[in-house]
Amino acid sequence: MEKLLYGAAYYDEYMPKERLEKDMQMMQAAGMNVIRIAESTWASEEPEEGVFDFSHVERAIKAAADHDIYVIVGTPTYAIPPWLAAKYPEIIAVTEDGPGKYGARQNMDITNPHYRFYAERVIRKLMETVQKYDNVVGFQLDNETKHYHTAGKHVQELFVRHLKQEFGTVEEMNREFGFNYWSNRVDCWENVPDVTGTINGSFLAEFEKFRRGLVTEFLLWQRKIVDEYRRPDQFVTHNFDFEWRDYSFGVQPEVDQWKAAQAVTTAGCDIYHRTQDELTGKEASFCGAINRSLKKDNYFILETEAQGHVGWTPYDGQLRLQAFSHLANGADSVLYWHWHSIHNSFETYWRGLLGHDMQENRPYREAMTIGADFARLSPSLLHLKKHNRAAILVSNEALTALSRLPMFPLPGGEVLYNDVVREYHDALYELNVECDVVSVSESGVSELLAGYDLVVAPALYSVPEEVLRALEQYVENGGHLVMSYKGGYANEYLTVYPDTKPHILHKCFGMRYQEYTIPQKVSLKDDLFEVSKEGRDCTVWMELLMPAGAESLAVYEHPYWGAYSAITKHAYGKGTAIYVGCHITPEYTKELMRYAVKEAGIQEPAQQAEFPVVIRSGRNQRGKQIHYYFNFSSDTREQEYLHADAQELLSCRSMTTGECFVLEPWGMAIFEEC
Amino acid sequence: MEKLLYGAAYYDEYMPKERLEKDMQMMQAAGMNVIRIAESTWASEEPEEGVFDFSHVERAIKAAADHDIYVIVGTPTYAIPPWLAAKYPEIIAVTEDGPGKYGARQNMDITNPHYRFYAERVIRKLMETVQKYDNVVGFQLDNETKHYHTAGKHVQELFVRHLKQEFGTVEEMNREFGFNYWSNRVDCWENVPDVTGTINGSFLAEFEKFRRGLVTEFLLWQRKIVDEYRRPDQFVTHNFDFEWRDYSFGVQPEVDQWKAAQAVTTAGCDIYHRTQDELTGKEASFCGAINRSLKKDNYFILETEAQGHVGWTPYDGQLRLQAFSHLANGADSVLYWHWHSIHNSFETYWRGLLGHDMQENRPYREAMTIGADFARLSPSLLHLKKHNRAAILVSNEALTALSRLPMFPLPGGEVLYNDVVREYHDALYELNVECDVVSVSESGVSELLAGYDLVVAPALYSVPEEVLRALEQYVENGGHLVMSYKGGYANEYLTVYPDTKPHILHKCFGMRYQEYTIPQKVSLKDDLFEVSKEGRDCTVWMELLMPAGAESLAVYEHPYWGAYSAITKHAYGKGTAIYVGCHITPEYTKELMRYAVKEAGIQEPAQQAEFPVVIRSGRNQRGKQIHYYFNFSSDTREQEYLHADAQELLSCRSMTTGECFVLEPWGMAIFEEC
Amino acid sequence: MEKLLYGAAYYDEYMPKERLEKDMQMMQAAGMNVIRIAESTWASEEPEEGVFDFSHVERAIKAAADHDIYVIVGTPTYAIPPWLAAKYPEIIAVTEDGPGKYGARQNMDITNPHYRFYAERVIRKLMETVQKYDNVVGFQLDNETKHYHTAGKHVQELFVRHLKQEFGTVEEMNREFGFNYWSNRVDCWENVPDVTGTINGSFLAEFEKFRRGLVTEFLLWQRKIVDEYRRPDQFVTHNFDFEWRDYSFGVQPEVDQWKAAQAVTTAGCDIYHRTQDELTGKEASFCGAINRSLKKDNYFILETEAQGHVGWTPYDGQLRLQAFSHLANGADSVLYWHWHSIHNSFETYWRGLLGHDMQENRPYREAMTIGADFARLSPSLLHLKKHNRAAILVSNEALTALSRLPMFPLPGGEVLYNDVVREYHDALYELNVECDVVSVSESGVSELLAGYDLVVAPALYSVPEEVLRALEQYVENGGHLVMSYKGGYANEYLTVYPDTKPHILHKCFGMRYQEYTIPQKVSLKDDLFEVSKEGRDCTVWMELLMPAGAESLAVYEHPYWGAYSAITKHAYGKGTAIYVGCHITPEYTKELMRYAVKEAGIQEPAQQAEFPVVIRSGRNQRGKQIHYYFNFSSDTREQEYLHADAQELLSCRSMTTGECFVLEPWGMAIFEEC
Repeated sequence: MEKLLYGAAYYDEYMPKERLEKDMQMMQAAGMNVIRIAESTWASEEPEEGVFDFSHVERAIKAAADHDIYVIVGTPTYAIPPWLAAKYPEIIAVTEDGPGKYGARQNMDITNPHYRFYAERVIRKLMETVQKYDNVVGFQLDNETKHYHTAGKHVQELFVRHLKQEFGTVEEMNREFGFNYWSNRVDCWENVPDVTGTINGSFLAEFEKFRRGLVTEFLLWQRKIVDEYRRPDQFVTHNFDFEWRDYSFGVQPEVDQWKAAQAVTTAGCDIYHRTQDELTGKEASFCGAINRSLKKDNYFILETEAQGHVGWTPYDGQLRLQAFSHLANGADSVLYWHWHSIHNSFETYWRGLLGHDMQENRPYREAMTIGADFARLSPSLLHLKKHNRAAILVSNEALTALSRLPMFPLPGGEVLYNDVVREYHDALYELNVECDVVSVSESGVSELLAGYDLVVAPALYSVPEEVLRALEQYVENGGHLVMSYKGGYANEYLTVYPDTKPHILHKCFGMRYQEYTIPQKVSLKDDLFEVSKEGRDCTVWMELLMPAGAESLAVYEHPYWGAYSAITKHAYGKGTAIYVGCHITPEYTKELMRYAVKEAGIQEPAQQAEFPVVIRSGRNQRGKQIHYYFNFSSDTREQEYLHADAQELLSCRSMTTGECFVLEPWGMAIFEEC
Repeated sequence: MEKLLYGAAYYDEYMPKERLEKDMQMMQAAGMNVIRIAESTWASEEPEEGVFDFSHVERAIKAAADHDIYVIVGTPTYAIPPWLAAKYPEIIAVTEDGPGKYGARQNMDITNPHYRFYAERVIRKLMETVQKYDNVVGFQLDNETKHYHTAGKHVQELFVRHLKQEFGTVEEMNREFGFNYWSNRVDCWENVPDVTGTINGSFLAEFEKFRRGLVTEFLLWQRKIVDEYRRPDQFVTHNFDFEWRDYSFGVQPEVDQWKAAQAVTTAGCDIYHRTQDELTGKEASFCGAINRSLKKDNYFILETEAQGHVGWTPYDGQLRLQAFSHLANGADSVLYWHWHSIHNSFETYWRGLLGHDMQENRPYREAMTIGADFARLSPSLLHLKKHNRAAILVSNEALTALSRLPMFPLPGGEVLYNDVVREYHDALYELNVECDVVSVSESGVSELLAGYDLVVAPALYSVPEEVLRALEQYVENGGHLVMSYKGGYANEYLTVYPDTKPHILHKCFGMRYQEYTIPQKVSLKDDLFEVSKEGRDCTVWMELLMPAGAESLAVYEHPYWGAYSAITKHAYGKGTAIYVGCHITPEYTKELMRYAVKEAGIQEPAQQAEFPVVIRSGRNQRGKQIHYYFNFSSDTREQEYLHADAQELLSCRSMTTGECFVLEPWGMAIFEEC
Repeated sequence: MEKLLYGAAYYDEYMPKERLEKDMQMMQAAGMNVIRIAESTWASEEPEEGVFDFSHVERAIKAAADHDIYVIVGTPTYAIPPWLAAKYPEIIAVTEDGPGKYGARQNMDITNPHYRFYAERVIRKLMETVQKYDNVVGFQLDNETKHYHTAGKHVQELFVRHLKQEFGTVEEMNREFGFNYWSNRVDCWENVPDVTGTINGSFLAEFEKFRRGLVTEFLLWQRKIVDEYRRPDQFVTHNFDFEWRDYSFGVQPEVDQWKAAQAVTTAGCDIYHRTQDELTGKEASFCGAINRSLKKDNYFILETEAQGHVGWTPYDGQLRLQAFSHLANGADSVLYWHWHSIHNSFETYWRGLLGHDMQENRPYREAMTIGADFARLSPSLLHLKKHNRAAILVSNEALTALSRLPMFPLPGGEVLYNDVVREYHDALYELNVECDVVSVSESGVSELLAGYDLVVAPALYSVPEEVLRALEQYVENGGHLVMSYKGGYANEYLTVYPDTKPHILHKCFGMRYQEYTIPQKVSLKDDLFEVSKEGRDCTVWMELLMPAGAESLAVYEHPYWGAYSAITKHAYGKGTAIYVGCHITPEYTKELMRYAVKEAGIQEPAQQAEFPVVIRSGRNQRGKQIHYYFNFSSDTREQEYLHADAQELLSCRSMTTGECFVLEPWGMAIFEEC
């Protein structure tokens, strides 16, 4: 598809009355050119066991074709029909919380052989049905696949098989997991206790890793089936998603997306976020950083809100701003979930573009402008490529450790892994420093890191020694590293390294520490950054840093802990290494990142502006630089144009460096350099 | 019983020592003329399977007779004996939360055939025993019957049978419930999934309706048994209750009391409420409105607190105020629960009239004055009849939708159905506008509505089209309607009406809306009512109303939503229709209701006073107007007498219109017009 | 051991690398002379069923011996190996919350015969192994034994057997428990319902008492086994602990420690508490009072924190202050839990003396000073004996009633039994009035009470009549009693006494009450004590006291309750009795206790100082008076020496009465009178 895709998920099956032709007309009128169908409607496609009925699927594909609308067909496997649950109740996953019940989607044991048998059959029938249609441009494997906390007997057996492969002997496992503790030591594989009762963090973390592996295996299995049918011009994607905090927040805990992305040709995801006064573009930026990383290429927004949650009814302009900010982050599509608002069942109030009255409304009218602009500007905006100089290093294992394990020490669960990651990401975002994400689980981490001037490693708690050595090497070779508290504390099995901290890196940081505590009335002293009093507060965690060569960027303000450093900087080899020993405020994080960016020699015109003015850049297909200027606020803003002379694409006005222009509330401008 | 009943529940079985004669003497001395016995003491009545012992029951009846005390005998079926639970463990209901355990009352599967067999037997034995006693004036069927969340295999089977009857075919059910969603579509009745796992709101709501039906069926079954024994002069009642929020708050979610009341000859209920500085009379008023509606007649207060909860120890005068305010709302009795305070088990601190020392105390001394006044004033106060001009339209189905379903959109569960209902009721109460309650489930709703000048329909979310048409007709014929947000949004199966909102009524309201959201920093502008700034806050929910003929009573104060109306008024036919598009404060609700009452032409003398002075009126048996003037505050108040010349019954003083008199703290006056 | 013990729990089994010799050297260098081993490592000692390997145990004992370090050997039974759980899954206790899972420690059914069989075998094998070592100075039975909420079928059967013994007939049980209530009346022992479903407080409380008995039985059983092997010079102890509120707070609810202590020769316990700005010494004082009471002798601190919880990293000086305050309360040992910080599993962040890097650190350096001082001062500080004049009367049954039962009336669960007990204890502590603890379950309570000038009975809700009579006798004979609200309200089965309150004692208190409520805007009037306005607040509970002979120390300030007394004092016989009818503030409690102490004629020099200066005294082995002066604050304090002329032991300086000296922040001085 050499054009931007704009559209929505479409469910003819859910309509309260005949709407297909009317809907396709309305979509076409709005410039929409793609629908996403079929996923989650297994019971409509196979209403009885072995009885298949794809008439609704074909009907939708044909109607779409009549209106020049592409179709992405999803396999329907993430929600099973009642007859299947009735026949094989064991398909519903037993989880840590006990047996499940039929009703919701995404509650099956994805390892269950019966489930696999029926899922394969319906996928094959569906593929046979849709392969003949030209306007089917691609396939989506399942939807937001997770392990759904499957933890029954069968999964436990698979897990023990995994442990055997991982450790060879129980002795080795006992040693790595510290199973001597509280008499957990295992004498033979048969006696490995049910992991759902364990209090051993290493054992639990390994189980989480194993379950993330189940997701990868499941998607690869679906990919293989789909590949038997698809044409070479059809893509395969998956609707990945994020840690959910009533909106898309951070790295997904249940999937190693870098591994699972082997199953797709194009990365895809859904993303939901707050709007109105809380629309910031931060989630879209984080989403882009993750998704560009999965296939090192552009990606699809397969689902995002038009109206979504009842609290998110968009202000005028916000729907446009959302759509274009996805493009600015490297997306090649924007699809809403969903076209219309559902009239009953569960997601009645997770609203689509149309409301319950299914009539033209304010959001639809705004969508019409987006569709028109997408169509017109597609040649300039499609396939935007980035060359970012900063990266954030993330890890599913550290996420597990610092979010999911009751035995982790961060007090009260108030700050979790993704909070720390987002705090650093958001600081860079507010500074208009675009950044990528690198995952510890990617192959060739060393090589990947070498491509950046600045690497930020937040909350990288559990990490193999080779990654720590790679980071040391990175600095030695001239890289600039910022690592936060708890970094490199434990190995990949969550066993704390039993020596000087930070493990391996203490020379690189020119600092070590032995003690840590929860800050009570502690703040940072000797502020380089002129941060406000409240901005200097330490909360949640503090390490008592003892510099040995490093410079103190900040020490603690406290009668007893004042003797220790809070943030250190150290020149090491050709690079520098900054260590942040405590949890700091967003305000302080931003100033520290401003400092680190400068140290790393990153200096781009965009940095002259700051949030709520957000600037995103890249190179388009014809090799021209594109710059998006967004206004994430309700205020009209006069903004200087900071890049080389260009054409503003929305107004078709030419623009000279240094010229001023107006950004309307929640408005934007798009520049293509001459 | 042509006299006011005053008494208490009495449990000889629970006494720590022989007390019967002493207690009867004390009751008689206090003017008490009724006790309520036997309910909940099955294990005393049938200590072993098939061994019956009603000696305590008879003993109490005889002792009461000796002291001219009537007896209401309750069937003992709401708590089963240990031997029955041991023999048939399946009698304990399996609920949504899993299997129950023996111990508490009200935890059985009321559909269980074994339970029914033994319950019937003990009821018959009890009836045989007590039918010979003259002072047994009536019977209470079971107690506070609910469905107790019974949801086991047997209930699921009954529910599927109900679905078959309701829908005929699975196809029809699939369509009504939107079962295509998330692959929930059912292929045959055998495969209808266990409702306890569902995420389908329509399915759940239907189950709740079905379970309310179980309660009706159960009480009708008991009535039939009791009818075989009772004399024509004996009444049958039931102790209905209210939604419980640590006190009696609103419409009962688990019972359709209008349907269930078919099983009784006289409505009855229990009511508990806060006292001390929080005694307002609002719960007594709401209680009266519901109970007068059930049999269109007077009703019994079968249980209310003397001391009750430890936080409710009454101030001097409050026990009197409570007792008379029930009469003022149309009750013919006041019975305390219970006579004495229990010395152990569960409700040790749910206190009776006597404390644990079982000696004369302050509350008992106040009860003596009540008993004396009841006896003296019975001819004037018994059978008070109301002719109210305002009504509140309520619905168990809307209650289910807006209180019990996790998929409902009101954010955070902070405001539920009964909150909205109570807000409108309480506003009328504070204005001294007496109102009735009409339920959507009553037959002849149209005719019922026609009797009122003002109908208020708060939070009437799910409602059949015929009710919406009846409301339209009501306005067209000259009625005055106030409807709140979400009104008429979905049908009786909780399926949102897929067209212009408000469904059917948009012409009547001269307004439609397409969008809604959660108000953030939103208030009401252009206030007609001079309400304070805080009083104009919008919270929880707001609809963006677009008048088409209607007048805006208020628009939103907000940079983006300011273009929309919040409250509209429209003349339609001979009547007017007010629509309130958002959740408003109690202060604003009161002013809006003052306005609506005026529009509806309701103008009574009582409206010249306002809470905490509360005035309730009615006609007594000899056709005279009775006016209660209550002071719900700790302040002494000078009050003008607003009605026609009358006799004050407590002081036996005559009173002229316009004359002033003193209301003591928590004091009152009762006037009988000449 | 005629010397102070100083050491740590040591787990060679948990070490990430070979450390034994290095650790023993470091311990010896720090003056540590004892380690505690083997408890909780069953799976290391019996890695497969019937295969025993005590090499780690012996290795540790031998290494310790080489460094003049004693060893306390713990039986390993509080955590079972996976093979045992796999073979007998029923060993994992079924609790009120349902079946448990293998994983955690302390989750077994301690009555399970299989568990007992294997536990006995491993204990015997261990004892056989270690009995030959001279440096094994004693044994610890199990660890922190509780009933672990065991409540399965087998336990229910044992409980019914217990009920038969207690009551003889079901009729008697029905009567005592008030089983007529809600139809709970039982017809035969076979039909006694599963206690886990009950709503009967008496039944539940009896079950709690029964389960506390299981702990006693279990420890006596272990003692008997150990006694077959131990030498006469070896002690037997147990690691008792406290109610846990994220630190050691109050009386342990699951164990009757006075009964269970029959199983040991020396009392022992663990204690954990907050530090930094929240280090007060109050927990150490309460710990001492309980433990001195168990065997009427000195006791061991078997576990306390060096660093412990991440929030408790100690300030400089605090580790010393903690160690010596235990000695000052009568402890003969201080052992840390544990030597090093664990590198994985569950308690990774429940830190030992050494951190994860296992290197010398700040806490270790402070421990070196403690070890040196302990060694030097042992002759003066060992076996400190107290002769206190005040005692607090506690009760496990009252604790159950006022903490564990949902039917108890204290609102919201905000104030529980131990809160009240601690409030009175802490007030005495702050006044430097040392007190003992007496338990209602001790034999000879009358005699024990007679030894004190002042007895405080806080929240003594459920108590047999003989104890109430003993208290009356105590006052009559000249004792001074302070009893708080709810005192003596119910009998040992939690049945409220059905007569004048306070039961039995109303004459002694010269007062009775009939009513009570939750105070809302209520405070105390006519303050004798010049307490601040906030300090006079009443919360949680208030009784409306009616003096009949007693003097009002305070009445309520409230428009309605102002007629009643809040605190009364009455001269009775040769003594006085103070009754506190409401929950008062810590500030008011302190002033009231100051008054009560004075009334009781207790006047010691220590009372001239006040918290944060804390003074603890006693007589050492050579009959000399020892006085500890502690500074529990960050401020340097000038303090007058208040006792007879003495030698300051740390500085070896002599000190005269009235002389001033400096207490450093978190500092101390120890005086031995000449």
